[in-house]
Amino acid sequence: MNKTQIQDFAKRITGTQSAPANERVKAVVDRMLLDLFVLIEDMDVTPEEFWSACNYVTELGKSNEVGLLVPGLGIEHFLDLRQDEKERAAGMEVGGTPRTIEGPLYVAGAPVSQGEARLDDGTDDGEILLMGGRVLDTRGNPVPGAKVEVWHANTRGNYSVFDQSQSPFNLRRTIVTDCEGCYRFRSVMPSGYSCPPDGPTQTLLTLLGRHGHRPAHIHFFVSAPGFRTLTTQINIKDDPHTHDDFAFATRDGLIPDVVHHTDPAVLRDMGVDRPFATIAFDFTLPHAVEGLTNAVVERARASAA
Amino acid sequence: MNKTQIQDFAKRITGTQSAPANERVKAVVDRMLLDLFVLIEDMDVTPEEFWSACNYVTELGKSNEVGLLVPGLGIEHFLDLRQDEKERAAGMEVGGTPRTIEGPLYVAGAPVSQGEARLDDGTDDGEILLMGGRVLDTRGNPVPGAKVEVWHANTRGNYSVFDQSQSPFNLRRTIVTDCEGCYRFRSVMPSGYSCPPDGPTQTLLTLLGRHGHRPAHIHFFVSAPGFRTLTTQINIKDDPHTHDDFAFATRDGLIPDVVHHTDPAVLRDMGVDRPFATIAFDFTLPHAVEGLTNAVVERARASAA
Repeated sequence: MNKTQIQDFAKRITGTQSAPANERVKAVVDRMLLDLFVLIEDMDVTPEEFWSACNYVTELGKSNEVGLLVPGLGIEHFLDLRQDEKERAAGMEVGGTPRTIEGPLYVAGAPVSQGEARLDDGTDDGEILLMGGRVLDTRGNPVPGAKVEVWHANTRGNYSVFDQSQSPFNLRRTIVTDCEGCYRFRSVMPSGYSCPPDGPTQTLLTLLGRHGHRPAHIHFFVSAPGFRTLTTQINIKDDPHTHDDFAFATRDGLIPDVVHHTDPAVLRDMGVDRPFATIAFDFTLPHAVEGLTNAVVERARASAA
Repeated sequence: MNKTQIQDFAKRITGTQSAPANERVKAVVDRMLLDLFVLIEDMDVTPEEFWSACNYVTELGKSNEVGLLVPGLGIEHFLDLRQDEKERAAGMEVGGTPRTIEGPLYVAGAPVSQGEARLDDGTDDGEILLMGGRVLDTRGNPVPGAKVEVWHANTRGNYSVFDQSQSPFNLRRTIVTDCEGCYRFRSVMPSGYSCPPDGPTQTLLTLLGRHGHRPAHIHFFVSAPGFRTLTTQINIKDDPHTHDDFAFATRDGLIPDVVHHTDPAVLRDMGVDRPFATIAFDFTLPHAVEGLTNAVVERARASAA
């Protein structure tokens, strides 16, 4: 079929309306359909290939992996780049900490602490991690009372709530910065992880000749009234996948130094019984801009049962 | 972002290969991704809209409705039109019974009978339907030993196996044509039906200002060695949705006359205790053509547990 025939066919399909539509949804669906018809024709997609793709979509939904495939195909990073561009165009202050993808593993309702928190429940004997810093505006002024929501994987690369073997909200906390804009927490060093090896995301990645590994990282939402909310992650430096993240989340400015402490005297001074690492990291928030979404993106998220 | 920036971004994503890929899958996915990036940019799709669509895909998979949405968006009919075109181009004989969509409700393994069958288990007191005819080649010669696989909904619009209240394989049979190419069956008149009102397919159709109704119809696979296998349906004439099928399956040549018989003398002659209808319908099969898929399309299908 040529382009005109395909357009006529698409019009016939999209013209079968008998009631008012949501015009926005209709416009996007009409466009997607036309794109799909043209793709099927251009690439001569066979019915077998098409139904195999349908089956893939079913498996993707059933296994709850849409939120894993989307970053794996770079789409979530693409949305970030577009949002950066929108903010530049709207004249938002420059110099804020870069955003990066949220991923599918945030869960609302973590315990809230003032100034500092211990994230781990003490059962994970990985390297102790002490992380802290300040929340600042773009002129370097501290932002007291900012909310630092943090979540990360354990040493086996698993997240509480999704991993039922962990205690509820393990490695998930909301820390409110003190009067000097400071936050700090004690936790255990997270590990990198990989897509479930038998899941549909890894199945497709393998067909694309790609791996499904993520470097070790820590997620954050950082928010304060009057500021644009930041969704970001920091990478744990020296992870072999830091610059080869299947989810394309690594960005300049998000790879702070990690200092590993093993000197028994230092350990004794810190009151810990094994080696620990420290990370210093400040978050910088631009002021909110009228007309832009300044909050965390609305999306369906998992919740703690 | 302009087109070049988007293409560069897409290349960066699709270039992250570390092992041999399935080149066909990669080519199609690369194209889909680029189409998607351009669509997001052109239509200024917001992150909220995007994640809402992701959530929709998850729901679609979980509810097993991909196979319902695909015909509802005309995609399955589009594949049929392309297959018609391929057969014309390959020089296949003209004059065969038109193909139309399979839909998602075929189940393999129905009982096989020679020449004739009763499809219903006697518990449905709808109008009795007697249907029959011949399987022919395009010159009108009978095709003995052809397989006529038939499946249809009951008077409530439900299919056995999916509707567990029906006996296994109710209204599903395989009938092998006799030495004169004839098949015939007794069943009950099917009803039209609608998409599940709370499912994701109807949700989207409603947003598009569309209904999700199908006219009453009967499905067939008709096959014989040396012939192209036919996937088709006949419509029950005079259904209000015959020419307004949400799945775009109605085609010329697939709406045979239905004769309703109510005369007590005729009923007595037929040995039935209530009104009945008759449909006469011949299936015409073109000979198979080298280089084309002449069998039923391969796709994942439900099976009887």
